[in-house]
Amino acid sequence: MSDSDVKFEARQTIEQVEEGDDLAPKFDDRGLITAVTTDATTGELLMQGYMNAEALSLTIQTGEAHYYSRSRQVLWHKGATSGFVQKVKELLVDDDQDCIWLRVEVAGGASCHVGYRSCFYRRIPVGQEFADKAAAGHIPLVWTDTDKVFDPEDVYGDAPNPTIL
Amino acid sequence: MSDSDVKFEARQTIEQVEEGDDLAPKFDDRGLITAVTTDATTGELLMQGYMNAEALSLTIQTGEAHYYSRSRQVLWHKGATSGFVQKVKELLVDDDQDCIWLRVEVAGGASCHVGYRSCFYRRIPVGQEFADKAAAGHIPLVWTDTDKVFDPEDVYGDAPNPTIL
Repeated sequence: MSDSDVKFEARQTIEQVEEGDDLAPKFDDRGLITAVTTDATTGELLMQGYMNAEALSLTIQTGEAHYYSRSRQVLWHKGATSGFVQKVKELLVDDDQDCIWLRVEVAGGASCHVGYRSCFYRRIPVGQEFADKAAAGHIPLVWTDTDKVFDPEDVYGDAPNPTIL
Repeated sequence: MSDSDVKFEARQTIEQVEEGDDLAPKFDDRGLITAVTTDATTGELLMQGYMNAEALSLTIQTGEAHYYSRSRQVLWHKGATSGFVQKVKELLVDDDQDCIWLRVEVAGGASCHVGYRSCFYRRIPVGQEFADKAAAGHIPLVWTDTDKVFDPEDVYGDAPNPTIL
């Protein structure tokens, strides 16, 4: 192994994982770790995805976000198709090291396959607003963004939609 | 069912899930959905957890964050022990409705059981900094926050640490 390879440490103690400087990520039984991606400038949550060990290694080495696509079951260099590459400004890990936070800049400004800047373009009414709006149990989602940055058909063509029902 | 109950819609079509106003969350085979929680003011990522249907319903009804603790296997009203209740300022759902984003205000300012404001208090060197710092494959994590907001022993006493190796 050369110094340019990424080596993850074995998880040995809680103190090591929570209070130490070892990178000892916890991949789940599918070999995946949760990844949360926010806009480095605005703090907006852009997307939530998953990484396998290869995706995390490549993200660390290249400074560009790589994920693992569960629907397509492939390593996924974000932006390879759409051009909306995510440049990692800061990469963080949480206390028990089962989640990675990417603070990114996005070329072109979009991160959502539906065409919006963020995958989170609808909000759920909460508390009194929920009580006021819910009728016969139906909670109407409210759009927080209605301006698509791109047309998915132009970018992805006939590629299958990644959403799984 | 009364109007105050929360009803989740069945997932029928991709258009309904991605482009409609139905709340049709996708709970995984454990009955859980990923929850991402940021500080509503600063945009800082505070924690990433999970909700079951009951936790999501209670969050919508009460406006206070509820999660499902995988380590303790119980519904978890965040702050019930520590006092650091999370008030939901905005609750959003992503395109395929398998992730919930909570934008919260935290009474007391802490969300991490280790004692920090955020669970994400260490960063991973990336790109050239990784190449410069990695020695014999070891990547030293770098602290982004060193000021604990509280002492976990004072707050949680002898309760078991939730981190699973």
